[in-house]
Amino acid sequence: MDDFLKMDKLSEECGVIGIHAPGVSGISHMLCFGLIALQHRGQESAGIAVLKNDKMQYYKEMGLVQEVFDNEILDRLPADIGIGHVRYSTTGDSYVSNAQPLVVRYKGGSIALAHNGNLVNAVEIRNRLEDEGSIFQTSIDSEVIANLIAKNYSLGMKEAVIESVKEIKGSYALTIVIDHMLIGVRDPNGLRPLSLAKLPEGGYVLASESCAHDVVGAEFVRDVEPGEIVIISDEGVESIFFAEGHKKAICAFEYVYFARPDSIIDGKSVYETRVESGRILAREYPVEADMVIAVPDSGIAAAIGYAEESGIPYNTGLIKNKYMGRTFIQPDQKSRELAVRLKLNVMKRNIEGKRLILIDDSIVRGTTSKRIINMLKAAGASEVHVRVSSPPVKHPCYFGIDTPNRQQLIGAIHTIDEICEMIGADSLAFLSDAGLKKSIDFKPCGLCTACFDGDYPMEVPEEANKFMFE
Amino acid sequence: MDDFLKMDKLSEECGVIGIHAPGVSGISHMLCFGLIALQHRGQESAGIAVLKNDKMQYYKEMGLVQEVFDNEILDRLPADIGIGHVRYSTTGDSYVSNAQPLVVRYKGGSIALAHNGNLVNAVEIRNRLEDEGSIFQTSIDSEVIANLIAKNYSLGMKEAVIESVKEIKGSYALTIVIDHMLIGVRDPNGLRPLSLAKLPEGGYVLASESCAHDVVGAEFVRDVEPGEIVIISDEGVESIFFAEGHKKAICAFEYVYFARPDSIIDGKSVYETRVESGRILAREYPVEADMVIAVPDSGIAAAIGYAEESGIPYNTGLIKNKYMGRTFIQPDQKSRELAVRLKLNVMKRNIEGKRLILIDDSIVRGTTSKRIINMLKAAGASEVHVRVSSPPVKHPCYFGIDTPNRQQLIGAIHTIDEICEMIGADSLAFLSDAGLKKSIDFKPCGLCTACFDGDYPMEVPEEANKFMFE
Amino acid sequence: MDDFLKMDKLSEECGVIGIHAPGVSGISHMLCFGLIALQHRGQESAGIAVLKNDKMQYYKEMGLVQEVFDNEILDRLPADIGIGHVRYSTTGDSYVSNAQPLVVRYKGGSIALAHNGNLVNAVEIRNRLEDEGSIFQTSIDSEVIANLIAKNYSLGMKEAVIESVKEIKGSYALTIVIDHMLIGVRDPNGLRPLSLAKLPEGGYVLASESCAHDVVGAEFVRDVEPGEIVIISDEGVESIFFAEGHKKAICAFEYVYFARPDSIIDGKSVYETRVESGRILAREYPVEADMVIAVPDSGIAAAIGYAEESGIPYNTGLIKNKYMGRTFIQPDQKSRELAVRLKLNVMKRNIEGKRLILIDDSIVRGTTSKRIINMLKAAGASEVHVRVSSPPVKHPCYFGIDTPNRQQLIGAIHTIDEICEMIGADSLAFLSDAGLKKSIDFKPCGLCTACFDGDYPMEVPEEANKFMFE
Amino acid sequence: MDDFLKMDKLSEECGVIGIHAPGVSGISHMLCFGLIALQHRGQESAGIAVLKNDKMQYYKEMGLVQEVFDNEILDRLPADIGIGHVRYSTTGDSYVSNAQPLVVRYKGGSIALAHNGNLVNAVEIRNRLEDEGSIFQTSIDSEVIANLIAKNYSLGMKEAVIESVKEIKGSYALTIVIDHMLIGVRDPNGLRPLSLAKLPEGGYVLASESCAHDVVGAEFVRDVEPGEIVIISDEGVESIFFAEGHKKAICAFEYVYFARPDSIIDGKSVYETRVESGRILAREYPVEADMVIAVPDSGIAAAIGYAEESGIPYNTGLIKNKYMGRTFIQPDQKSRELAVRLKLNVMKRNIEGKRLILIDDSIVRGTTSKRIINMLKAAGASEVHVRVSSPPVKHPCYFGIDTPNRQQLIGAIHTIDEICEMIGADSLAFLSDAGLKKSIDFKPCGLCTACFDGDYPMEVPEEANKFMFE
Repeated sequence: MDDFLKMDKLSEECGVIGIHAPGVSGISHMLCFGLIALQHRGQESAGIAVLKNDKMQYYKEMGLVQEVFDNEILDRLPADIGIGHVRYSTTGDSYVSNAQPLVVRYKGGSIALAHNGNLVNAVEIRNRLEDEGSIFQTSIDSEVIANLIAKNYSLGMKEAVIESVKEIKGSYALTIVIDHMLIGVRDPNGLRPLSLAKLPEGGYVLASESCAHDVVGAEFVRDVEPGEIVIISDEGVESIFFAEGHKKAICAFEYVYFARPDSIIDGKSVYETRVESGRILAREYPVEADMVIAVPDSGIAAAIGYAEESGIPYNTGLIKNKYMGRTFIQPDQKSRELAVRLKLNVMKRNIEGKRLILIDDSIVRGTTSKRIINMLKAAGASEVHVRVSSPPVKHPCYFGIDTPNRQQLIGAIHTIDEICEMIGADSLAFLSDAGLKKSIDFKPCGLCTACFDGDYPMEVPEEANKFMFE
Repeated sequence: MDDFLKMDKLSEECGVIGIHAPGVSGISHMLCFGLIALQHRGQESAGIAVLKNDKMQYYKEMGLVQEVFDNEILDRLPADIGIGHVRYSTTGDSYVSNAQPLVVRYKGGSIALAHNGNLVNAVEIRNRLEDEGSIFQTSIDSEVIANLIAKNYSLGMKEAVIESVKEIKGSYALTIVIDHMLIGVRDPNGLRPLSLAKLPEGGYVLASESCAHDVVGAEFVRDVEPGEIVIISDEGVESIFFAEGHKKAICAFEYVYFARPDSIIDGKSVYETRVESGRILAREYPVEADMVIAVPDSGIAAAIGYAEESGIPYNTGLIKNKYMGRTFIQPDQKSRELAVRLKLNVMKRNIEGKRLILIDDSIVRGTTSKRIINMLKAAGASEVHVRVSSPPVKHPCYFGIDTPNRQQLIGAIHTIDEICEMIGADSLAFLSDAGLKKSIDFKPCGLCTACFDGDYPMEVPEEANKFMFE
Repeated sequence: MDDFLKMDKLSEECGVIGIHAPGVSGISHMLCFGLIALQHRGQESAGIAVLKNDKMQYYKEMGLVQEVFDNEILDRLPADIGIGHVRYSTTGDSYVSNAQPLVVRYKGGSIALAHNGNLVNAVEIRNRLEDEGSIFQTSIDSEVIANLIAKNYSLGMKEAVIESVKEIKGSYALTIVIDHMLIGVRDPNGLRPLSLAKLPEGGYVLASESCAHDVVGAEFVRDVEPGEIVIISDEGVESIFFAEGHKKAICAFEYVYFARPDSIIDGKSVYETRVESGRILAREYPVEADMVIAVPDSGIAAAIGYAEESGIPYNTGLIKNKYMGRTFIQPDQKSRELAVRLKLNVMKRNIEGKRLILIDDSIVRGTTSKRIINMLKAAGASEVHVRVSSPPVKHPCYFGIDTPNRQQLIGAIHTIDEICEMIGADSLAFLSDAGLKKSIDFKPCGLCTACFDGDYPMEVPEEANKFMFE
Repeated sequence: MDDFLKMDKLSEECGVIGIHAPGVSGISHMLCFGLIALQHRGQESAGIAVLKNDKMQYYKEMGLVQEVFDNEILDRLPADIGIGHVRYSTTGDSYVSNAQPLVVRYKGGSIALAHNGNLVNAVEIRNRLEDEGSIFQTSIDSEVIANLIAKNYSLGMKEAVIESVKEIKGSYALTIVIDHMLIGVRDPNGLRPLSLAKLPEGGYVLASESCAHDVVGAEFVRDVEPGEIVIISDEGVESIFFAEGHKKAICAFEYVYFARPDSIIDGKSVYETRVESGRILAREYPVEADMVIAVPDSGIAAAIGYAEESGIPYNTGLIKNKYMGRTFIQPDQKSRELAVRLKLNVMKRNIEGKRLILIDDSIVRGTTSKRIINMLKAAGASEVHVRVSSPPVKHPCYFGIDTPNRQQLIGAIHTIDEICEMIGADSLAFLSDAGLKKSIDFKPCGLCTACFDGDYPMEVPEEANKFMFE
């Protein structure tokens, strides 16, 4: 647990990037900068794989991008094409062997893959491949995909990729280097984001979020579509649709919490959807108060929206210590209190004697909410009304988000009144399902909101499909 | 240079803490947590020294608090009394031998000292002590102070401390462990902050900023006064004034940039003074525009004040990557551009086509301002009016702030019009000296504003007194 | 290059160990201790894989055994059965992904393999497997073997192992954990050593050399025979011979240099064969002199034999600095001189004015011989007669020894007279091929002496079969 | 405890080096190479201090020389003059602040000091200096010496050094850089060795042992005399005798165990004295046996002497694992057995059924002797007769050797018969005091043999004078 406060959030997943720019210098560095921009999507491991003159090389380690890479390492990784990955463990263990990209040798040469998402039929395919004598060295889904591509090799590379992704089910945004091509794939529901940009020096960038394009100075071209394979080669960009008729279902939590506010995903500014969710929340659950404050940083946009709509002034009520990194503190009861204090401090003068509206983007376990409210009341707040800019999380995610056991999902096992009492708030309200959808404003059914309403975009296993492989 | 963006700010100095709480468990951990809260004051080295049963132990290393300490190390440092220090090198080299606290053995036992500030007569005293045969092993001022106390030993400990601090000139907030006492000293002008708080379990805490009290759950008692020695022993707290008739001159930059916004220093909320500076700036230098944005994080409070006063809405225009730590990037021209992009991204949708007022807390070299304005204009801002919530920095600081050479102080060598053109702004204005004083609202002459107006609170050396000792 | 002096020796290969002792505590520690005893066989990486209650775990890293493991790591690896490996890179690159044991998941569960040796048909098998759609993640032969076993899975585990080893050619001593069994395999020629011992607490140990048995207190049972598979399960030890009619060809260099002198391999004490080679060398190439000295440590046993046979007293002429580890010195000409001096010093008083016989176990490149002779003469030796207790190395090894290019094999491109002049000796002689065989005293044809005489025990590829996989 | 086997030896002390060679390149590297040669004298910390163009710089860390230094660090330490130190903690704690050289600033500039030895009046002088107001930052004697020199500064540098060393009592070999001079000092009894050599490129080297001269290619000039100060400046070498009439008393243990066998100290080859001690031991304590073996490495020379004199053949009975470094093993009873096995293995074939004479250089605690004899008997030795080439250690050392408590000195609390029974030997004998003296063959009274006979060369404190300073 690198950050105690995140315990009350859903865990991040992974981020992918890919660059195809033969002849452009510094591609490894650009991959690394892109990964720094995507760091919020995974802090467990980081890696890049690069191809230059038929030579595939890779480097991956446990740790943050800037802990894993330095100029010396990057200089030893010359590239015409490359991909990168930041990982937050969702399936598999925290071993470096599970770090991505996965690089394998097959009949036609080498493949490198980076995957954001989770396959719901990985075990099934794996069993089938094992029946045929395949061996597996990691516990990541990507190894299943690489095996499928290698098995389909004789079809030619494009066909092999198409056939392979047709077999897999679940969520996936993939970047692949194979046969001098950079390939991007997005699952038929578009559960995970992936977009395309163009480098000013020539060449293309694929990335989970547009903030990674910005950092390397690439100009946004378009989102990769659900069920689309984008093939980037020296001939340019080719598009193949391998799946049709699926409902678009981009993960709503990307907008609620995961994505960086400066990213634009499927045409929507993440920041704007958050402000809008705050505005709707203000209309749905108004309350008389003196001040709107946010749980920083993720609640700030919605708090600004709430303040704007309600006319109640926004102010800073809590300050985050930007030097409070991954903590060494043991997670006993007393030190959890402390972890919250180390991370957040109350702006006593601002909130003393005030009736507060505290905006949080989501409440998953409820563990920190109580401590924050305690701190605010101890510092003199007369009332604390909690407003959450997303509905209660009630259902597990099978598509790459690390949801806790149902027993730990406070929204699954308690009524809102119970939660309100448990966290010591004067009132509590969550954004409605309809409000959430409206804030992101997709066409009907364009969002996956399964964690809130249990309406999964595809059949899911009866039990969690996370397998252990040690 | 651990953080390129900081190049355009004045460098932090140091932070000190001290705890006297015999019998309370976990004092080393508390010192460490307090240092985490003070981490913004110095990131070069961290250390604590503790006394338990006549045994003085210490641990100090180069690095951030959380890199230097872990539970295992802290568990080996049992304490009844202790002090801690985070350092940003102002004098002396970046050797671990210059890390603090300084722990020495003298006739009466051991002394541990932690010092925030800079002595203007250190070289002079050092020369005198060397004439008498003393040797020096570090290049920090604290060694001079420790020598003075040891020389005055025969006077008794309190008298020795009093006599010693009477000899030194400059800025200093000291925490000292000596003879089973925790001693806090603040220089006669009160240039550096120091305040006292009380632990709920019993015992006292001294710290540079109140945010360190908050993190250990201590209740604020009062600021240590300029020219005051606070002696904390088993008998309680004793106060001695060793200097009178000096003008109060707390460093204005503590409010402008150094201190954490949630700290309260000499009775003033740092956050409130920043909001107020924004309000005054709006009155002094109004401009027609569509939106007020801030250079995060330090410009946000003033931007909120400017927006409030001007009626022009505040919005988020720039997003900071919270994972962008100490960078491995070589400081060539191209990578500086990149460093800014890695650290900050523009909220394109928010600012497109807008006339912006960009609030920054200070401009020292002007190096990043130009790049930020470029990014905003490239993202579609139609106008960028820069408003700085402090006056131009024109004079070196002799009291612990690492001001660059006059040649690099853009405010010292260029007119405001020239600067405006250099950074590519549509208009530029700095808060007036009077505005600054008013925003902090001290009694006349209560602030040191020498870096802005050259009005030093004491005689300063003709040349920089930083000496090298290698 | 971790040790410059070794540049003039053939490089080590690898060492393997395996323990089957369900219920005995501390198996991971024992594996680790065994690897420390085998450390001379490989210093690049170390690893162990253990099975307990159907759970296979492993830990491997670049570095020496004692750098890779500590008690904390070992305590987290509970074991009933386990294997270990120390590696000196012969094929494949120096990546941690090439470290062993290799652990894979296949249809029937998990397999762990450790391999000492080199397959001459690995590329061929690999190509065939890739044709069938297999992917490869490392560049080590062991992955080929694991794939074969997985492909043959349906035959039952024992049959699968038998069929798989029948397909591979080359040298191999394998330890394998599969299906709750510990399996040891030795290639049909017995090129690499492997022996079996019994733990006093119950259970069995397989290891490359008997010194590893000694360190864990196991009692030697017997050598594994060429072409034998030893299967250790809860039912005891089963033996299967999978290849017959091959000529026994244990690597002669194991006796000359690789193995530890205290090991007993195929019934011969390594130390005794070295002493005997010195005796034979004295008979083959006598010379009048005052003193016999050795290049420490590997030449000492032969020097004692030479002295004994010749009647010329043995004395210490060169002292090794036992703290001179892996050097940081750049390998330029001047620093090579220095590296020799850092590692070895002349016992001036002992050799001054003396006619010396200098015994070395082998000369591969001749690079250090010259420097040692220089040092001896500079210290006052009147004559230096070099006697080498093995024949000149003239041919590459295909069975796991890292022989340099023919161009660097001084024995392949120069006559003995030329070498004598190049290294500045007063006379030079190498043990004859017949002498070597006699010193080890195997039945006719029992040794592989291909590196000396080119007589390979099987067909070898025309070119080196080391493939790169990056 | 870095090496369990050493527990049964007296602990090493420290090693010093100094080079004065303005204009010669690579002096820092040479200092480092010299320290590698002296590594056996101390493995706790290593450091060098260098002077170039009035700039004194230093680098010191905990660890072995090759762990502390690399080329990059050495390249940043340009030098005309420099000193180096390896430390085994005898007084003071294992903190990096106690690592040497000590570098201080005094009235006249900078002093760097490296010290091998121990002062018996350090506490006394320290108290006096503290009375005068001096402070101390370390717990090493060198700080006392530096203070004395600084106090005497006004006398001129040479006089200051002379006056200072006249005040200190105990053992010391010092190398000092001060005022562009390299100064070497040896205490009046010459307890610790120090010798002078000349570089072929010009310039001089001072070192604890001649093996350090050899490694940098310097030619031995002469030993520094007891009570001599050697001053090396651009004018050449000046010699001053500051103490006369003291009896020469070089530490006998330097010859018995500490020094490297290839060193020549005070005109005696260490190796030869060890061989001679073995010869004398054979005459003093003959025994009928089949073979003489040694506890490697330190017993080998004496074993060769014993074999030569007795006519009983010398053979290798125990093999040392050269990769067995500082162990991670917890020192419980079982693991101590193991530690011995990891470090040493029996040459079973050589010793089976034989009556052995086992030569050890010294027995201090007796802890490993018992285990080695057990191993030999378990391997089939029919008799083990232990002969020790030095007398029993019975008295503490006050001059820099870390002798255990009297309670742990087996020779102080048990008779030889008792020890024989405790370690399970068939017979046991120690070299006589007279035999020891004769083996080293100094003029009467030239040796300090106080640890054997209690005859100290000067008055020693009643209790240990090690003070703690934490």
